[in-house]
Amino acid sequence: MPARIRLPRRPAPAPVLVVGSVAYDSIETPHAKGERILGGSASYGALAASYFTEPRLVGVVGHDFRAADRRKLERRGIDLSALRADEGGRTFFWRGRYHENFNRRETLELELNVFERFRPDLPEAHRASPFAFIGNIRPDLQLHVLDQMRGKPFVVADTIDIWIETMRDTLLQVLRRADVTVINDSEASKITGETNAVAAGRALRALGLRTVIVKKGEHGAVLLHDDGLFTLPAFPVERLHDPTGAGDSFAGALIGYLAARGETGFAALREGMAFGTAVASLTVEDFSCDRLASAGCAEIRRRRRELSKITRI
Amino acid sequence: MPARIRLPRRPAPAPVLVVGSVAYDSIETPHAKGERILGGSASYGALAASYFTEPRLVGVVGHDFRAADRRKLERRGIDLSALRADEGGRTFFWRGRYHENFNRRETLELELNVFERFRPDLPEAHRASPFAFIGNIRPDLQLHVLDQMRGKPFVVADTIDIWIETMRDTLLQVLRRADVTVINDSEASKITGETNAVAAGRALRALGLRTVIVKKGEHGAVLLHDDGLFTLPAFPVERLHDPTGAGDSFAGALIGYLAARGETGFAALREGMAFGTAVASLTVEDFSCDRLASAGCAEIRRRRRELSKITRI
Repeated sequence: MPARIRLPRRPAPAPVLVVGSVAYDSIETPHAKGERILGGSASYGALAASYFTEPRLVGVVGHDFRAADRRKLERRGIDLSALRADEGGRTFFWRGRYHENFNRRETLELELNVFERFRPDLPEAHRASPFAFIGNIRPDLQLHVLDQMRGKPFVVADTIDIWIETMRDTLLQVLRRADVTVINDSEASKITGETNAVAAGRALRALGLRTVIVKKGEHGAVLLHDDGLFTLPAFPVERLHDPTGAGDSFAGALIGYLAARGETGFAALREGMAFGTAVASLTVEDFSCDRLASAGCAEIRRRRRELSKITRI
Repeated sequence: MPARIRLPRRPAPAPVLVVGSVAYDSIETPHAKGERILGGSASYGALAASYFTEPRLVGVVGHDFRAADRRKLERRGIDLSALRADEGGRTFFWRGRYHENFNRRETLELELNVFERFRPDLPEAHRASPFAFIGNIRPDLQLHVLDQMRGKPFVVADTIDIWIETMRDTLLQVLRRADVTVINDSEASKITGETNAVAAGRALRALGLRTVIVKKGEHGAVLLHDDGLFTLPAFPVERLHDPTGAGDSFAGALIGYLAARGETGFAALREGMAFGTAVASLTVEDFSCDRLASAGCAEIRRRRRELSKITRI
């Protein structure tokens, strides 16, 4: 079994469903280049969650998906029984470039490939998962996942700007059904017209979303919950290498923590965000999932403690 | 005596020297307009400090300075014996406009007026002030203030971008002599070339600055100190009215708190930043110093407590 962070006096953690993309990314930053490296919301989300519980990844890859990348996920104990291998095409591909100290991201190439005909049908065993991270995929597919789930799963959902522009109504249906929406400040602003993260979060709740976490990149994140507001800075990394996947790592660690703790209240969410921030800080210190997959529990715990130190008044 | 926040078991607070501009500002925001309202770094700084101790304001005003504005400062117990009235000209004047949800500020008019020939000579009694906030004025004048001070005052210094461009060396001399530099993220970035606030703060310390506080507006502030790093979010105001003076209010409350506490270590600085954040949030809720001058200690304490709540993991 892969190394996991054990919470004191807790029963065995519940499994977490992680739905999203598994992708190959080619990334240019102001300092370096990575070619066809493992990426995608489900890869980052599942690897992050794997530090707390068993993730069940739902996604699709093409005939070019490397055995080494599959092993990278398996080694962290991720259940890949619902990762479909579609031999009729290539894996989802994204080529992007970060500019000006990472403040701007540009998409240079996007190939949906096998993702174009992907339909996330859940195996029988996965439908009763008590926790789910529904990462960025087309909103109607996110709805399809929600419709298949049984019982009362605790759902964290994410999205990206293209769906706000092209499928706003379906997207809002998804986010209203989620227990927690995790969303970038720029996307929250695109939906609500509010540029301040707190104001945008409040406006999202006024649209019927339950709990909202607005991610602000290097400025941290804000939680808006029935029981109050909570803010958290980003972990101060020594050197930002590649921000891709930070948000998915944050959400994956958050849902993993909640599943391990077996609680989903305000206090659990705050603590989950702290672990999410610690785990996301690993992701941005290297290309792809390499540092995330190899960092180990001790380093995550150290960063979690450090966060307490730097926020304590 | 004006209402002050009393710290438990502390002796009478030491007075604070506050040096900077006293100005009339005409401000346009996306929502409203204010004409020739009281502003300037020394006005905001002294009013903020007045909630903790007696500020001694050093500055200059012209023949157009209104008696009502003088009374506004006096009512908060501010010592105006070193506020020179120069009958030969008008008060420093700034006209500016905020755009796009306050993310960009434009200077439309700037008249130095009596400030052009101002030289901050300290009265004998002020030279031994144990605490000083040296707000934004020309760096050679800031040096002139430092040169007149006796003993080992604890100095908080601030600046703005124009001096980085035109008097960088003199400015760095000032900041190296200050105990704490309080600086905007954009200005820290202009000096160091680093856009991330933590990285810019570290680079400033590498340039010989002692303790650095990088202000990030709606994203809060970061403290870089020999004993560690500390982050604080902005107080979540219901409605941003006019951000002018927020930074000076923050610094004024910080130095006021330190003077009242009689301590200047890492813990005192963190707590002082929390009070600074609480006080600055009042400033931005109205034009000019109106809300700042009238808010009262109970509201400042309430906001300080709220900050603990929203940052506690």
